[in-house]
Amino acid sequence: MSFHSFYQRASSLFKAYPSTSKILLLSTFSGGGGVLVYSDSNPLKRILHADATLDSDGNPIRKKKVVVLGSGWSGYSFLSYLNNPNYDVQVVSPRNFFLFTPLLPSVTNGTVEARSIVEPIRGLMRKKGFEYKEAECVKIDASNKKIHCRSKEGSSLKGTTEFDMDYDILILAVGAKPNTFNTPGVEEHAYFLKEAEDALNIRHSVIDCFERASLPNLTEEERKKILHFVVVGGGPTGVEFSAELHDFLVQDVAKIYPKVQEFTKITLLEAGDHILNMFDKRITAFAEEKFQRDGIDLKTGSMVVGVTADEISTKERETGKIVSEPYGMVVWSTGIGSRPVIKDFMQQIGQGQRRVLATDEWLRVEGCDGVYALGDTATINQRRVMEDIAAIFNKADKGNTGTLKKKDFNSVVKDICQRYPQVELYLKKNKLKNIANLLKSANGEDTQVNIEKFKQALSEVDSQMKNLPATAQVASQQGKYLAKCFNKMEKCEKKPEGPLRFRGEGRHRFQPFRYRHFGSFAPLGGEQTAAELPGDWVSIGHSSQWLWYSVYASKLVSWRTRMLVISDWTRRFVFGRDSSSI
Amino acid sequence: MSFHSFYQRASSLFKAYPSTSKILLLSTFSGGGGVLVYSDSNPLKRILHADATLDSDGNPIRKKKVVVLGSGWSGYSFLSYLNNPNYDVQVVSPRNFFLFTPLLPSVTNGTVEARSIVEPIRGLMRKKGFEYKEAECVKIDASNKKIHCRSKEGSSLKGTTEFDMDYDILILAVGAKPNTFNTPGVEEHAYFLKEAEDALNIRHSVIDCFERASLPNLTEEERKKILHFVVVGGGPTGVEFSAELHDFLVQDVAKIYPKVQEFTKITLLEAGDHILNMFDKRITAFAEEKFQRDGIDLKTGSMVVGVTADEISTKERETGKIVSEPYGMVVWSTGIGSRPVIKDFMQQIGQGQRRVLATDEWLRVEGCDGVYALGDTATINQRRVMEDIAAIFNKADKGNTGTLKKKDFNSVVKDICQRYPQVELYLKKNKLKNIANLLKSANGEDTQVNIEKFKQALSEVDSQMKNLPATAQVASQQGKYLAKCFNKMEKCEKKPEGPLRFRGEGRHRFQPFRYRHFGSFAPLGGEQTAAELPGDWVSIGHSSQWLWYSVYASKLVSWRTRMLVISDWTRRFVFGRDSSSI
Ligand SMILES: Cc1cc2nc3c(=O)[nH]c(=O)nc-3n(C[C@H](O)[C@H](O)[C@H](O)COP(=O)(O)OP(=O)(O)OC[C@H]3O[C@@H](n4cnc5c(N)ncnc54)[C@H](O)[C@@H]3O)c2cc1C
Ligand SMILES: Cc1cc2nc3c(=O)[nH]c(=O)nc-3n(C[C@H](O)[C@H](O)[C@H](O)COP(=O)(O)OP(=O)(O)OC[C@H]3O[C@@H](n4cnc5c(N)ncnc54)[C@H](O)[C@@H]3O)c2cc1C
Repeated sequence: MSFHSFYQRASSLFKAYPSTSKILLLSTFSGGGGVLVYSDSNPLKRILHADATLDSDGNPIRKKKVVVLGSGWSGYSFLSYLNNPNYDVQVVSPRNFFLFTPLLPSVTNGTVEARSIVEPIRGLMRKKGFEYKEAECVKIDASNKKIHCRSKEGSSLKGTTEFDMDYDILILAVGAKPNTFNTPGVEEHAYFLKEAEDALNIRHSVIDCFERASLPNLTEEERKKILHFVVVGGGPTGVEFSAELHDFLVQDVAKIYPKVQEFTKITLLEAGDHILNMFDKRITAFAEEKFQRDGIDLKTGSMVVGVTADEISTKERETGKIVSEPYGMVVWSTGIGSRPVIKDFMQQIGQGQRRVLATDEWLRVEGCDGVYALGDTATINQRRVMEDIAAIFNKADKGNTGTLKKKDFNSVVKDICQRYPQVELYLKKNKLKNIANLLKSANGEDTQVNIEKFKQALSEVDSQMKNLPATAQVASQQGKYLAKCFNKMEKCEKKPEGPLRFRGEGRHRFQPFRYRHFGSFAPLGGEQTAAELPGDWVSIGHSSQWLWYSVYASKLVSWRTRMLVISDWTRRFVFGRDSSSI
Repeated sequence: MSFHSFYQRASSLFKAYPSTSKILLLSTFSGGGGVLVYSDSNPLKRILHADATLDSDGNPIRKKKVVVLGSGWSGYSFLSYLNNPNYDVQVVSPRNFFLFTPLLPSVTNGTVEARSIVEPIRGLMRKKGFEYKEAECVKIDASNKKIHCRSKEGSSLKGTTEFDMDYDILILAVGAKPNTFNTPGVEEHAYFLKEAEDALNIRHSVIDCFERASLPNLTEEERKKILHFVVVGGGPTGVEFSAELHDFLVQDVAKIYPKVQEFTKITLLEAGDHILNMFDKRITAFAEEKFQRDGIDLKTGSMVVGVTADEISTKERETGKIVSEPYGMVVWSTGIGSRPVIKDFMQQIGQGQRRVLATDEWLRVEGCDGVYALGDTATINQRRVMEDIAAIFNKADKGNTGTLKKKDFNSVVKDICQRYPQVELYLKKNKLKNIANLLKSANGEDTQVNIEKFKQALSEVDSQMKNLPATAQVASQQGKYLAKCFNKMEKCEKKPEGPLRFRGEGRHRFQPFRYRHFGSFAPLGGEQTAAELPGDWVSIGHSSQWLWYSVYASKLVSWRTRMLVISDWTRRFVFGRDSSSI
């Protein structure tokens, strides 16, 4: 028919000329502002695909083989920003898409579709000329610079395919796995909320529970059990999921399953004293109060000790007693732990005692050459000022006089601040303008300091070191940072741009990684989101998620994802949430 | 942010006043025509929910309990049109949604989303005041008017719930199951395309195959095996799926998996001489030619005798030999068979020897009181004219004279045509204007006929009887027909509107079911669809699917589904198909 054939033709036309610059007016919403969509396939970028580059004498250079493990926030960010034709880039990940995790809780109740928040990786590969392999790395052989990979168990293809790959440079961006703290029964009976499939499974299961509870021949007790939803973990994910579930119960269940609504209950279990304990106290208090008003049963000081097919058992801190409650569904969201392949790798490189893989400030894995780690996979082991204090003093004391003058000091102050970010944090916290002031505050009017006094003045700064949180913000910034380093690798080899090496000669090749915090937010259901912004701002009020998403993820969230999410919202707005169990 | 909070507020507003009539301009497409969406929740319909109705003396009437099994084309259609407050309606189906099957093949390659072509049943239940239970009927106890049901195995809820239900009237609309003809290995290794999950599984599996074939360390043989897609069955579903798969290979794979494209192959196996053999020969010829041009390997006269994990074996009619070929994925689409619960029921009511459950022309199951069957579950066992010929003659021969005059005959001719639709078909085929002409053609100028001559004249008409096809068109028309009968049950009890009972007294309560064929179509991939229209029209050319969908399914396809499908097409148009394996 006319619409259909118009569509068919126009679509063919659109596809036949992908390189011309196009602007399509996709959708205007109730007379509101129009949204523009650009087609961003750019054939020029394909020149990167050329297999060999020539050196200044015209001889082909063997490209360095960079193997990237993972297509999540950090890996995808690295790949998006990498732009250096001197690398042969290979990507290995069991998941052939990037997943926009902040909207995952919204998938659990059908506000947003899973497919709308994924970005197929094949698109980026084509644009950049990179190679992708859908497989999991099961073993890293650091001494031979090899990895061993295994394909997923396919649904129609029996067995798996295994293969090895060499690398010159390995980028570990495999994220982390949910941590059950070995609590018995969790793996078997609880749901996790980490991957897209998890969100779909949760969605099915919630609908399942309502359909099951609506069947005849059940006692009131049984219906209550089936409709008891337990969320374990009061971090942002657990809190947001509880809020989304509550919205679903209030907005949809009342209409769709009116007869069983009275039997529903949400319990949120938190082992600590408060939920959202990484946030500002005002946000925690607000969230706790809101949950109480909403009728969500929030139990703090309640540690899960076991889950069976029918019951969840907790140890209550106040009474020391073990309490068991029947449930219909448990969602587990208590934090993350290292993946087995990373644990094994840590053994090989002498990090076996650590809980998490450590890198230096340039994201290089400690104790291993040519391997970098990003995102949830690793933490940055920040160098203490106190460890290097003698070296710093000596470097500044050019004449080897045993005392530092203001002038000596000024020549290294910038490098100190770059190399040891805790110094700046300390100054900020103590409202000091610069290190000179710090020395002064420790040393009075004396403008010369010896090593002891120097140590004393800086003795407190290391207290400002803290680990970066395991968030998409950190992961994506690390990916971008590392890609930019790789892009200027050759330039900075000749002309290093980093700070002075205090314990060695010359300068570091690059500036160390610095995290910029753009704020955190915790959607609390309904229209409310709590946001913690840099500079100690706290904001609670109308949902401003979208703003935050677009600020801190501006480059990674494609127009495609944005449009699909808006269109999901539109669908929900017009047709309501969907209760079909598919 | 502004868009988001506008959305939140507007959505709340929209939901707070669901009963006001609203028109929303959802989407304007590239300057094309606007599409209107109406909100159709109508609170007036809820009055049906009142539990008891009063008789003329003001006493409550016990409502008759109608149990409907199935929420597919026929069941959903019945429920949509049913509008009689004297029934207490209970629906049992393992699937809490209606599925728009004609677009299922488009889900397999991501042109349309599964969720867009389902309609949650809870919405209809609420509107109509019906009760729904998500369970499967596992046993019908016809003598006690009871059914036994079992809930689905939930994903988080262990075990199942079982319950019994009584009925006064039972409507069987459970559809059919794929028929494997007991071919060994099919259940274990092949994919079916019947349910929404099937389409999603196929989609995952196709992507799986491409990802797997792209891994290193495989021989060319292995890649060819993995990318060999075999479709078994040349009916409309098999043909359409092959065409959709071919479109995906040509339009998307070339871009996404350029390195393995050369190894792909589609084989379509058909045991008969031709594909689409229920269609007009011109369509078959066109489709076969198109498939050849497209490089789809069409093998007719090729019957599958077994499937193992790696190979599919066929017996070739021409040579009588068994041939085995390695494959990556097999999709099985060779027809349908009765579900076990129906087989068991047939045993109980003396239909154990039949292949398919039989009903009369009023859709009442033969040999069983108060049970109706619709759609793919049953076939109508049409009454032969020849069986009733004496009764017809006697009824017409009011004076018992042994001969019929034109006048006698005229008084029953309308009833004959209504009761035995084959008569009209026969007249049409032989270009006779009416039965009088038929008698004349058999009888010359003689205007009186005796029973022998009457028999002779009508001896050929039964040759025109044929079973209705197992299609959505038939199923939905039957559902609508039966609902309309139920709606006027009381009225027609008093004043029957059906034809004369030739073998009994009085009239039939209702007109028997009559099928109106609106045409069939077979999408052949690309822009092409072959359509066979009533009145012997055949049309091959630009895709006219949408036209057909809207013609023959006009009432059942909600605005929601239409809009979602259009929006899926828009997404695909703008962003291309999605290759993520989710
Ligand atoms: C529900 C939820 C909501 C969240 N919301 C927010 C939020 O609002 N804001 C925020 O800042 N953060 C949020 N986060 C946290 C954020 O998603 C993570 O910090 C971030 O994903 C970490 O990025 P990553 O690249 O380290 O790991 P991931 O994004 O997890 O990516 C890991 C990748 O490695 C792949 N992989 C796994 N194992 C292997 C292997 N053996 N070999 C090769 N590849 C492998 C995976 O398939 C995946 O592609 C949320 C997390 C969840 C689960
Ligand atoms: C891929 C595909 C494409 C098709 N395309 C077309 C087309 O383009 N045009 C056309 O006219 N026809 C088409 N058909 C055929 C059409 O879908 C069927 O003829 C139609 O669905 C039959 O309707 P039904 O109500 O009998 O059964 P279904 O629609 O199959 O519904 C059966 C219902 O019964 C439920 N059920 C099953 N077992 C039980 C049980 N034990 N107890 C209770 N409930 C049960 C099922 O969950 C389902 O809800 C297509 C079919 C397929 C598979």
